[in-house]
Amino acid sequence: MARKIAILGGTGPEGSGLANRLARAGEHIVIGSREAPRAQEAARRLCAHIGGAAKIEGADNATAAAQCDIAVLTLPFSGQAALLKQLKGVWKPGTIVIDTTVPLAATVGGSPTRMIGVWQGSAAEAAAELLPAGVSIAAAFHNLSAELLTGDAPIDCDVLVCSDDEKAKQVATELAAKIPGVRALNGGKLENARIVESITALLIGLNIRYKVHSAGVRFTGLPAK
Amino acid sequence: MARKIAILGGTGPEGSGLANRLARAGEHIVIGSREAPRAQEAARRLCAHIGGAAKIEGADNATAAAQCDIAVLTLPFSGQAALLKQLKGVWKPGTIVIDTTVPLAATVGGSPTRMIGVWQGSAAEAAAELLPAGVSIAAAFHNLSAELLTGDAPIDCDVLVCSDDEKAKQVATELAAKIPGVRALNGGKLENARIVESITALLIGLNIRYKVHSAGVRFTGLPAK
Repeated sequence: MARKIAILGGTGPEGSGLANRLARAGEHIVIGSREAPRAQEAARRLCAHIGGAAKIEGADNATAAAQCDIAVLTLPFSGQAALLKQLKGVWKPGTIVIDTTVPLAATVGGSPTRMIGVWQGSAAEAAAELLPAGVSIAAAFHNLSAELLTGDAPIDCDVLVCSDDEKAKQVATELAAKIPGVRALNGGKLENARIVESITALLIGLNIRYKVHSAGVRFTGLPAK
Repeated sequence: MARKIAILGGTGPEGSGLANRLARAGEHIVIGSREAPRAQEAARRLCAHIGGAAKIEGADNATAAAQCDIAVLTLPFSGQAALLKQLKGVWKPGTIVIDTTVPLAATVGGSPTRMIGVWQGSAAEAAAELLPAGVSIAAAFHNLSAELLTGDAPIDCDVLVCSDDEKAKQVATELAAKIPGVRALNGGKLENARIVESITALLIGLNIRYKVHSAGVRFTGLPAK
């Protein structure tokens, strides 16, 4: 049976965008939302948008999490902990969680160009604390513009993948490389997610100052593949 | 009289590299060091390296600071506060300080891929607190590889300039643009220096993991100049 990828909080712009790109790459997607009908409606719209053989379902977050092999967290930071507590007994052993969360100050009514301090160091490390044994985590996809993810054109951006688990890092790296134009880079340990998350706040600031919508980042001086 | 640029702590790799590039661009450089003879020796070596009409002097840090119009701070973070306290009564009014400091954990015996927490938010904001009225500050140059700064080839890296002072931001932006290949970007307020500083720790990690020496960063999706 082909693997399923749940996109939790997947009705938002970043989640819908990732669902779009991964479904186009042939992955079987389950969009998760607080309410199943909203997720099903988002899945229907995305199927119509992509056309062809796109495999996209919708379900409430817990139902999506229970059946997936890989779960991508695309909720606002303010909703992350509550959801992960709810899902603690739900995950299948071996599930890989990919956290895309950026703890922007906007999540507590502040500016989207500022971060809030997370005691654990990063949203990813906060998430890691709330996963049961046997469920591993990588952090990735933070710096991809939601607007660019909506389409199908190549995206001029690197994805830094941070994880303490080799398998999780490998899976997230392979998924990132399925998005045209994207280069997946080894971002090192999960603790480095704090830097990668904060780059998103910097990109939002560049978007504002330069009046664009989809600033991204490339790293130079690295070996060609 | 042409302006003078002091490079304080300028005998280290980052400082020497910036002195090299700015002298090549025709700027009058005063390398500052704790001991004047070391600075003078570094200035002599750099003059010989560049040749031609390079204008480079050496002096102790206070003497360099007292005569400059622009001062570039290239000390390790552990030496920054002590020097700025010493210089508080030394600066000419109107001096522009450009801080390049990255508070790497290496400065307290930790890893160069980790940062230490700075109460003010960034090394640049810590520096700002120690400047007298009339001396303004911008943060820039953090992400340029010292190795690449040593030569004269174009550098494939953007420089984010962060400042709350328009004049300081403009001066730092113009200096960055004098380095071949470099694009200077408006990094917003000085508080954003915390993100730009941390990108250096990420680049050092990329250097280690990819076995290179001069990873850099470019931002995509911005308007062409």
